[in-house]
Amino acid sequence: MIFLEKLTAVARVNNSWLCIGLDPEPEKLPQGVGVLEFCHAIIEATHDLVCAYKPNSAFFEALGAEGWASLKSTIEAVPRNIPVILDAKRSDIGNTGRAYARAAFDHLGADAITVNPYMGYDSVEPFFEYRDKGVFILCRTSNPGSADFQSLRCDGKSLYRVVAEKVGEWNKHGNLGLVVGATQPEELKDIRQSHPTLPLLIPGVGAQGGSLEQAVRYGADVNGKLAIINSSRQILYASSGPDYAAIARRVAQALRDEINCYRTE
Amino acid sequence: MIFLEKLTAVARVNNSWLCIGLDPEPEKLPQGVGVLEFCHAIIEATHDLVCAYKPNSAFFEALGAEGWASLKSTIEAVPRNIPVILDAKRSDIGNTGRAYARAAFDHLGADAITVNPYMGYDSVEPFFEYRDKGVFILCRTSNPGSADFQSLRCDGKSLYRVVAEKVGEWNKHGNLGLVVGATQPEELKDIRQSHPTLPLLIPGVGAQGGSLEQAVRYGADVNGKLAIINSSRQILYASSGPDYAAIARRVAQALRDEINCYRTE
Repeated sequence: MIFLEKLTAVARVNNSWLCIGLDPEPEKLPQGVGVLEFCHAIIEATHDLVCAYKPNSAFFEALGAEGWASLKSTIEAVPRNIPVILDAKRSDIGNTGRAYARAAFDHLGADAITVNPYMGYDSVEPFFEYRDKGVFILCRTSNPGSADFQSLRCDGKSLYRVVAEKVGEWNKHGNLGLVVGATQPEELKDIRQSHPTLPLLIPGVGAQGGSLEQAVRYGADVNGKLAIINSSRQILYASSGPDYAAIARRVAQALRDEINCYRTE
Repeated sequence: MIFLEKLTAVARVNNSWLCIGLDPEPEKLPQGVGVLEFCHAIIEATHDLVCAYKPNSAFFEALGAEGWASLKSTIEAVPRNIPVILDAKRSDIGNTGRAYARAAFDHLGADAITVNPYMGYDSVEPFFEYRDKGVFILCRTSNPGSADFQSLRCDGKSLYRVVAEKVGEWNKHGNLGLVVGATQPEELKDIRQSHPTLPLLIPGVGAQGGSLEQAVRYGADVNGKLAIINSSRQILYASSGPDYAAIARRVAQALRDEINCYRTE
């Protein structure tokens, strides 16, 4: 099934724009709980509350070959109707880009991936040639350092706007989207106005301080049908006790419901 | 041992500025030879001819958990006096960046890594805080699409120059370098003039069409002590027969010697 159709279908069924980021940090896990058990428990407890899951490759890679196997197993544990966005921020060219795409889509079975645009068209193309998969290109990220380059004025406009425009041009298969942090609400609004229908993946609410209300109001597409609002730590580590999955569910439900309060359809 | 000391020491001992890129593409390997066997044989046949090896993470990741184990084993097979630059083009922030750095340096045991600058300072900092490790930041890459963003005029100069300047500012521990493709010789010259001592990792000679002579003449540091000239496919796939390692050695030796002809010390 095509990524975007899968995403909008489950967003409707679960009445949710919430994406849960799976960032298993060993030092934050409840005592005696391994990465794999943790991820499985979170998915089991929350899968009727989300529109997507976003495992972050870094935390699995830090555990070596075993971590890589855990990443695959975590993706396999997600119910088939829920899309998995692999947060890998990959980028390379030609044969190398194709190898990364094979790793994400063919081997791990992700439905979408995050990609870094710095190397240009031929570093993004190997990913979006998988027409049934989604590709989210970093545009304006949620971190403080994002201003170092993304906010530079390039030919009269900010670099992140140039990136967004290029992504609009490259989107011939309709499977591209942008990553725009909630921590820069005015820039989120600006990007959404210029690109009314591109899917936006919006991290930065919760622990990073972005306003949930602005993320939803400014991030929603022109039809009010979707924004992908990511939350990771706020949900995963709401409790460090044996009740962690139940508490994660409670926080996820509250977030889903709060997001829905701000939606204006 | 500190990366840069290790690099210059082996460059002197082996009288070589040649870095061999380890890009094991399954469909190009000699018949019946697996990825791990191939990489080990190439290292065994060439280790007295190089200043570094540069395994590209993508080709190992495409093989899943087993590929990840092969990457670790390949790195372990490199003699300890020769530095390993993990070509991973990673980038992420805070805890996530630190997890990528742990994966590359603590788990895999690489001596250096390539990093994408688009997300700014706090996406590079988790890597360069490993003071004994090297961090090569993408500046002007060797692919055609690199002009899409890297050549934009930002505040009066090209984005790649802004990146190079920032890297110069960030280099407080002396462990940063730049990736600059040989396919843009004038820009390589320009970057080297502005940054006379930063280590440059230069891909793009051989299969990608960059001039070896210009890569060496323009890429060498101000003391004429070092440029890191990468070659991958030209060496790895010089023969697809059972003699592949011997032929790879012959091509590597010819490249090393040709590089040395262009050096002016």
